[in-house]
Amino acid sequence: MADESATDPITAAYREVDTPSSQVAVFGDREALTLDSGAVLSPWQIAFETYGTLNADKSNAVLICHALTGDQYVASTNPVTGKPGWWSLMVGPGRPIDTDKYFVICSNVLGGCLGTTGPASIDPKTSKPYGLDLSVVTIADMVRAQAQLVDHLGIETLFAVVGGSMGGMQVLQWAATYPERVFAAIPIATGARHSSQNIAFHEVGRQAIMADPEWCAGEYFSQGRRPTKGLSVARMAAHITYMSDESLHQKFGRNLQDRESLTFGFDADFQIESYLRHQGMTFVDRFDANSYLYVTRAMDYFDLAAEFGSLSLAFKGSKTRFCVMSFTTDWLFPTTESRSVVKALNAAAANVSFVEIACDRGHDSFLLDVPEMFSTIRGFVTGAAKARGIPVPGGEG
Amino acid sequence: MADESATDPITAAYREVDTPSSQVAVFGDREALTLDSGAVLSPWQIAFETYGTLNADKSNAVLICHALTGDQYVASTNPVTGKPGWWSLMVGPGRPIDTDKYFVICSNVLGGCLGTTGPASIDPKTSKPYGLDLSVVTIADMVRAQAQLVDHLGIETLFAVVGGSMGGMQVLQWAATYPERVFAAIPIATGARHSSQNIAFHEVGRQAIMADPEWCAGEYFSQGRRPTKGLSVARMAAHITYMSDESLHQKFGRNLQDRESLTFGFDADFQIESYLRHQGMTFVDRFDANSYLYVTRAMDYFDLAAEFGSLSLAFKGSKTRFCVMSFTTDWLFPTTESRSVVKALNAAAANVSFVEIACDRGHDSFLLDVPEMFSTIRGFVTGAAKARGIPVPGGEG
Repeated sequence: MADESATDPITAAYREVDTPSSQVAVFGDREALTLDSGAVLSPWQIAFETYGTLNADKSNAVLICHALTGDQYVASTNPVTGKPGWWSLMVGPGRPIDTDKYFVICSNVLGGCLGTTGPASIDPKTSKPYGLDLSVVTIADMVRAQAQLVDHLGIETLFAVVGGSMGGMQVLQWAATYPERVFAAIPIATGARHSSQNIAFHEVGRQAIMADPEWCAGEYFSQGRRPTKGLSVARMAAHITYMSDESLHQKFGRNLQDRESLTFGFDADFQIESYLRHQGMTFVDRFDANSYLYVTRAMDYFDLAAEFGSLSLAFKGSKTRFCVMSFTTDWLFPTTESRSVVKALNAAAANVSFVEIACDRGHDSFLLDVPEMFSTIRGFVTGAAKARGIPVPGGEG
Repeated sequence: MADESATDPITAAYREVDTPSSQVAVFGDREALTLDSGAVLSPWQIAFETYGTLNADKSNAVLICHALTGDQYVASTNPVTGKPGWWSLMVGPGRPIDTDKYFVICSNVLGGCLGTTGPASIDPKTSKPYGLDLSVVTIADMVRAQAQLVDHLGIETLFAVVGGSMGGMQVLQWAATYPERVFAAIPIATGARHSSQNIAFHEVGRQAIMADPEWCAGEYFSQGRRPTKGLSVARMAAHITYMSDESLHQKFGRNLQDRESLTFGFDADFQIESYLRHQGMTFVDRFDANSYLYVTRAMDYFDLAAEFGSLSLAFKGSKTRFCVMSFTTDWLFPTTESRSVVKALNAAAANVSFVEIACDRGHDSFLLDVPEMFSTIRGFVTGAAKARGIPVPGGEG
């Protein structure tokens, strides 16, 4: 029986909620976390992985911020899925973010479900999972939690903060909230606020989860249930927005799935249907439904201009070097969103370079093998390291 | 109690399934309808409305084809919602499709739920609603049913066939299947096949419905239940695709709904959330969940090129005059889809004019007050009427 539960992905995922396979920093009453909502988290914890070695003057730390359903396993095996790190192409020895040169930190976001405090974590007040009793968290809260982790690691200034999509939101929030702690910032496929259309897609996902009677008003754990169908539908809807019309057409078109002709029924006749169903079904094995509510809500709430009065005020006086990147076929965070950020950075007289990369793979391009993205980031990071004067082991820097 | 049920929209909708407020043509065993699946419908019925007067030589009949969730009440009050006809701006006295000049027919599609045979209709074999026992229907089946209605009305050739979105698919199918019976064709905001992305969105909607335990494998009527939550989520997801990013931004942006600040909860903080929830909730009062499965499936299956070998073969030798129309911000049926149709029509040496209309309202533009669309259609229809030699009452034609 013990062996069975060890290989059951749901059980494995649930174990990761409070006792993650990664490192974890636990903060007690004297290190409580005050959230934007006014709520205070205490105790709370943040799960993280590190790669490479922090140098003597602690000047080579890179923080990677993950997207909606990402995790701290940026360049190491995910303990739930057994899959390689989600950005192994970007982060690792000899990669654009080279762990032979930099000390890379990646933490699970606040509200997540892989070891950082989130709705599936045990509420110390009740000894039951928080469920909806956890306060709604924001991108700024996620960043505040990361800053506390960076303090805990004894690092004053991050050499770089890097991330795509919701990870990019955190990058922008870092640069706005802690300008003196961020030497270089790489926000990719992101924006300074969530658009109406993006909120709309998230709301569909949340409604799909909350419509599932297994959701039990968020208390499914204590009732031994799980809203897998609702979460699966939410993932399917979201997944469409991560791909471009072009890539769907090229990858699937109207091809049929393991059949010669239409069946005149409601099975998955088309490959795209089969693919989406698979995406939905595998997602529920690794992600918590309430976490999905919380993390989508954090993205919806994100609006740097509203927080700072205007977007250029958010970056006023910034000395951070920015490399803003978008993809031509990304319709979730189209280039116009990146251009707004660049415009505000220019208005704030910040140091910014902007690259729009031609790629037909849509929003998910930032996770894929896109050589121009890698070469751009490698070049930018190398230049920033020289400017920062980071001693490179065995190098000339 | 009787009064209560009369005003209950669900009861009203259900009554319309078999005994519609509109006209209805019932076809018996000798007029059975053979479907693309091979199934034979007998008896079956088609509900329709007509407007204006058929002239002596029966040359002024215009068939309007409705979209996914449309109905036969194109220019008259919908008996379930009490709202004006869905295309009253386009069809009526003095309108671009002028019911003072033309005899307009609009029928509920096969698979629908407002009086034409569909999954909510009573199966004569079991005396219970068909549910999933109804064969899956296709756009060609819908058109075959309409052709039988047109025969029944004693009309040989339609002056024009007009429709947007799924209505436009029917227009193209009419022109391909019955070229000699269509003098003019106006396919709007449509395509000759459903794209991979479009199938994907439909599949999300179907999965949302089928994930609802109230769906009961399609037999909810006989169990006194209704999958309203699943259908509502399906509608919410679809509704996003009907609008453009621009129109959502202009209409809602990040505006809050009846509140001064964020609530840090999962209520509808944003106007777009409130709007979408309303769209979902009102939809379930007027539409049957199984019909939604069937009609979306018909759209997914649509692929004229596959049916005829190539798109230009579909229109080979056509004498029909075409007016193809698309909208700049329609991302569900982007202009590229219309261009493919136009290219095929040109390859078939057909008579075609093509207009892409600049409008920021997305796919739903065809249903809205878009003056350029009205003037284009008025001009095209008037020209076609002259070419056809339709005697206009009181006019010079």
